[in-house]
Amino acid sequence: MQGRHLVSIDDLSLAEILELFEQARRFSEDLRSWAHLCPGLISASLFYEPSTRTRLSFESAMLRLGGGVLTAADMRMSSASKGESLADTVRVVSEGYADIIVLRHPSEGAARLAVDLSAVPVVNGGDGSHEHPTQTLCDLYTLWIEKGTLEGIDVVLAGDLRYSRTIHSFAYALARFGANLICVPHQGFEMPNYVLKRLREEYGAEPVRADASRLGDLASESDAVYLTPQKPHQLSLFTDGSGLPVDKVDAVYMTRPQTERWGAESEQNFLRLGGGALSPEPLRNALLMHPLPRRDEISPDLDANPRSMYFKQAARGVPVRMAILAMLLGRWESKAPRIASLDRKYEVLGGDNPCPNSNCISHTEQRHCKATFRITAKHPLRAVCGYCSHELAIGVVGCSTTRHFHDRGSAPARKIRPDHLVFFRDAEQAVTMGYTAPTR
Amino acid sequence: MQGRHLVSIDDLSLAEILELFEQARRFSEDLRSWAHLCPGLISASLFYEPSTRTRLSFESAMLRLGGGVLTAADMRMSSASKGESLADTVRVVSEGYADIIVLRHPSEGAARLAVDLSAVPVVNGGDGSHEHPTQTLCDLYTLWIEKGTLEGIDVVLAGDLRYSRTIHSFAYALARFGANLICVPHQGFEMPNYVLKRLREEYGAEPVRADASRLGDLASESDAVYLTPQKPHQLSLFTDGSGLPVDKVDAVYMTRPQTERWGAESEQNFLRLGGGALSPEPLRNALLMHPLPRRDEISPDLDANPRSMYFKQAARGVPVRMAILAMLLGRWESKAPRIASLDRKYEVLGGDNPCPNSNCISHTEQRHCKATFRITAKHPLRAVCGYCSHELAIGVVGCSTTRHFHDRGSAPARKIRPDHLVFFRDAEQAVTMGYTAPTR
Amino acid sequence: MQGRHLVSIDDLSLAEILELFEQARRFSEDLRSWAHLCPGLISASLFYEPSTRTRLSFESAMLRLGGGVLTAADMRMSSASKGESLADTVRVVSEGYADIIVLRHPSEGAARLAVDLSAVPVVNGGDGSHEHPTQTLCDLYTLWIEKGTLEGIDVVLAGDLRYSRTIHSFAYALARFGANLICVPHQGFEMPNYVLKRLREEYGAEPVRADASRLGDLASESDAVYLTPQKPHQLSLFTDGSGLPVDKVDAVYMTRPQTERWGAESEQNFLRLGGGALSPEPLRNALLMHPLPRRDEISPDLDANPRSMYFKQAARGVPVRMAILAMLLGRWESKAPRIASLDRKYEVLGGDNPCPNSNCISHTEQRHCKATFRITAKHPLRAVCGYCSHELAIGVVGCSTTRHFHDRGSAPARKIRPDHLVFFRDAEQAVTMGYTAPTR
Repeated sequence: MQGRHLVSIDDLSLAEILELFEQARRFSEDLRSWAHLCPGLISASLFYEPSTRTRLSFESAMLRLGGGVLTAADMRMSSASKGESLADTVRVVSEGYADIIVLRHPSEGAARLAVDLSAVPVVNGGDGSHEHPTQTLCDLYTLWIEKGTLEGIDVVLAGDLRYSRTIHSFAYALARFGANLICVPHQGFEMPNYVLKRLREEYGAEPVRADASRLGDLASESDAVYLTPQKPHQLSLFTDGSGLPVDKVDAVYMTRPQTERWGAESEQNFLRLGGGALSPEPLRNALLMHPLPRRDEISPDLDANPRSMYFKQAARGVPVRMAILAMLLGRWESKAPRIASLDRKYEVLGGDNPCPNSNCISHTEQRHCKATFRITAKHPLRAVCGYCSHELAIGVVGCSTTRHFHDRGSAPARKIRPDHLVFFRDAEQAVTMGYTAPTR
Repeated sequence: MQGRHLVSIDDLSLAEILELFEQARRFSEDLRSWAHLCPGLISASLFYEPSTRTRLSFESAMLRLGGGVLTAADMRMSSASKGESLADTVRVVSEGYADIIVLRHPSEGAARLAVDLSAVPVVNGGDGSHEHPTQTLCDLYTLWIEKGTLEGIDVVLAGDLRYSRTIHSFAYALARFGANLICVPHQGFEMPNYVLKRLREEYGAEPVRADASRLGDLASESDAVYLTPQKPHQLSLFTDGSGLPVDKVDAVYMTRPQTERWGAESEQNFLRLGGGALSPEPLRNALLMHPLPRRDEISPDLDANPRSMYFKQAARGVPVRMAILAMLLGRWESKAPRIASLDRKYEVLGGDNPCPNSNCISHTEQRHCKATFRITAKHPLRAVCGYCSHELAIGVVGCSTTRHFHDRGSAPARKIRPDHLVFFRDAEQAVTMGYTAPTR
Repeated sequence: MQGRHLVSIDDLSLAEILELFEQARRFSEDLRSWAHLCPGLISASLFYEPSTRTRLSFESAMLRLGGGVLTAADMRMSSASKGESLADTVRVVSEGYADIIVLRHPSEGAARLAVDLSAVPVVNGGDGSHEHPTQTLCDLYTLWIEKGTLEGIDVVLAGDLRYSRTIHSFAYALARFGANLICVPHQGFEMPNYVLKRLREEYGAEPVRADASRLGDLASESDAVYLTPQKPHQLSLFTDGSGLPVDKVDAVYMTRPQTERWGAESEQNFLRLGGGALSPEPLRNALLMHPLPRRDEISPDLDANPRSMYFKQAARGVPVRMAILAMLLGRWESKAPRIASLDRKYEVLGGDNPCPNSNCISHTEQRHCKATFRITAKHPLRAVCGYCSHELAIGVVGCSTTRHFHDRGSAPARKIRPDHLVFFRDAEQAVTMGYTAPTR
């Protein structure tokens, strides 16, 4: 790993993000006058699942910067079918073929693996349901451009809050910038607890849960949130909650049902926004955002509304990605302080890979991944997979020097040096592996 | 819709076409010396069905002009599989990704929809069996280059005259330029009546129908038209007809059976041209043209004949498309008078979409298309779909102001203002919709 | 056929190859400073089977040279599905679309056919299991860079020596340069006799066959060659042989099992190299090479070893291909003497196509290929297919002038002029075709 990469939006400090936005705004003033920035440089789009919009906007950005583009729009059908690993592909492409790699891959943590092996910068163009940082940057950029700031703005997150990677990353980023979140999920697609917990613990954010009665008002008053005519149902998605700042919503971010991830059954009566959705008083200044592609969750009647931002969000992908590419390629430098480096990553010593996520690259490409972890809390000891960030299911932990094992909540567990830590499902496994319980 | 687009060859005046040809000829003198025309500009190939030749020639043209290229060679497999509409894709790509869009789509009228939504020029690279104007321009250009003029030349159209989009557009364009047409269809694949009618009514052209006995002579004398040895059959494709100008045919345009549109059953004994096809006296100066790809309808023995134009037709796609791109991108301007604008397009008021073509984009993407129509005749009233140009099946028509309905051939029907017109299948439907018969 | 092409590495003289390497080395000093060489020129990647690495490295090379790129990454799914022939596609693309064609095709001899029809240079990017000359050049280049010379070096060829096109071409090329070959095949995947014969007869090379006992030593001592733990088996691949120069191996070239060509059954206990494979004394200076993609035949533990060359081999594909493209496009000229032209190619006169290879382009695209042959020996008469180079199965031969036929080993057979030669399966067929036995 040399130079910089963009795997997660957490790789960027808030100050850097704002500088990136200033630069994107400069680029957007005339997209066609920046071809002197990257002549002779090449980006490679390595897409292991198709995503035309993401791919084309990165490629457009590179062309606008005067660079060249290599395209592998469906790697799964080409070298992957011959059994070539992501790891080997990244090593090869990064050695002279391209000067920067844009990677899209269905396994979580794939971009992290690519970073470990690449000789050139890597941009994560989406790794499974893990991260898609440039999408989030485009969303934030739109809010920043339109509202002038991100701090203190009130954003409604609506639709599929459970499976949408976009929403999770967006929520974390909004929380970092001090925005307020109001969740209006589709029934059964509530924001997962681990996301709420992280919002609370890492960013001190407490998403407002919409009060059913007020939301009901909102819906009946304004048609802001309506359902299929066939099966109207209760909007009682939240039962507690207060302080829904309905008097000043800045943006409503709507998502489509992620049917490719959870099947099509519930799509029929998914939350839909009709032509009048932005009319009620609390939404009088609200922007309507959506990551696209949309299906039926936003009526085409809203397209002409100047506060409908979804096409602008997508369009702004070009200047934002130009700023990212130019930064990672060293053709534009941010003066802002960088993020304090992430917690150190440690190798898992012996035993099975403790990552519980079967779609993690550490499982799907295990020959080339050494399982790693990061410690996220000391007491009780908690750790996440070094690739996909899923929390490890830790029973007891051992010390590779003393060969003792301990409960993960115990005081001795806290004292084991991270590079001596060994994870076990349970005491039995620890014993099998030759570890002993400490003398009490 | 800003600026210009190329959806149909009818978007261009004859004078413009000829200026375009002059420009294409200048480009063709040295394809490699025009890179100063479009530096910094980007074309996007949005292909919803594969067509390598069309795509590569547009992309080559753009590269020759110094521009950049974004490629989505199979949209159906990528964003379309996530349910993204053509409408949304066009809006996004046209907002900053690209400066011009080349669209290929299986639904008729798709390019028209794209024009309605795009912020940049759109070139139709083929929409179902509707239009493929750049193919037609390449064909005309070849004739113009080789014969020096299009007026008064005699062109034989042979093969599948029924399903071939190419042939229909080519026939209309030849008729506009005052060329004479001689039809030699494969049995069962005659030129459709609606095409013959349009040739007659719009362009005053009367295709000559070949006399069976003379055609028989032609075939036996020259082997110009021969059939599979297994199943020779009668060439009695036309029974009336006279004036076949066999003494001076300028070109024979042969088409392949469109098996992807009508199945493979009849391919076996399809019209085929053998090595001696251009030898008989009436064809002594005839060019042999074909839109490619060919299968067996033209023998490879003809490839070396200097009058075989099919590879040149394809090759000339590059300078012709350079001229089109440069014109639409505003880098080269025609001084010729533009076409008088097309008949106005009106929205269909209420009721079902009256377009009878189930493959029309107004049906396949109905959420984003408002059904529209153009009036083509006043007495009796006739109208075509605003997207695919299919004639509407009109029973009775109503006036949205008076709420009366009338027979489409009646005098009152003629007087209804187009923006008040309502279409009904029949009187019963009109009554159901609350319209009444006029007092008589 | 105008100008030069690269179908086989045999199209280049040894001196030219070395000059090409010098040029590639100059390019590799700074890949990004050669964009002035090919501005305005376009390469077209016509890939009838996917091969991301080959395609991307050619395209990267063209971009580094300042040229543009047209990509058809999966022709089989596009125009080929409409029945378009390779022949017609090449003719069209070579007429103005592109200035050079890079072709990958599953049929042997496809590149030879393309050369016959193309108006621009053609580079063979792999035609079935026939030739893949740029892969071989990258392999040789790596050895040349690392060892300083190719003459007299000792190279172990290991793995699938039977089906690997890469290995065969590499072996011939090494033999031409005077390298010594040591074969260590996976059991059942020995170097085919026709390859050994050609090595012997055309290049005077005699691959050393490894002595079982010494190999056994090597394996046990060093773990250089180990097998799956489940099924260790004897390394008695060779029984005779002597002079294995294990005291000075310069390189070990390992190949993957070509499962797409022979099914997956034997992959389980395929030869694998473990982490210590390069440690034993005889391999103390050996490079480890592999054409990629690898699966399990080389342990990732070897990746960090500075003598592991497989990623460098791939990376060096860019400067090598830059040199090839620049040479064929006339932007860089070798001063070295060219290869004496190949044996003349003759058309097969009448009868069936005598090529025994059903995957040869002369069979898979027979409408556009005239069967041809080259004579490789006079006594007894031997000939190979003009496309795929497979030896023809000749029974008796006739003279089209005398209408006599002769045994192929007979003296009269030797005297027939090549352009009068007719091939027959047997005397019976010759008689059926109207030929008579000579008077004795």
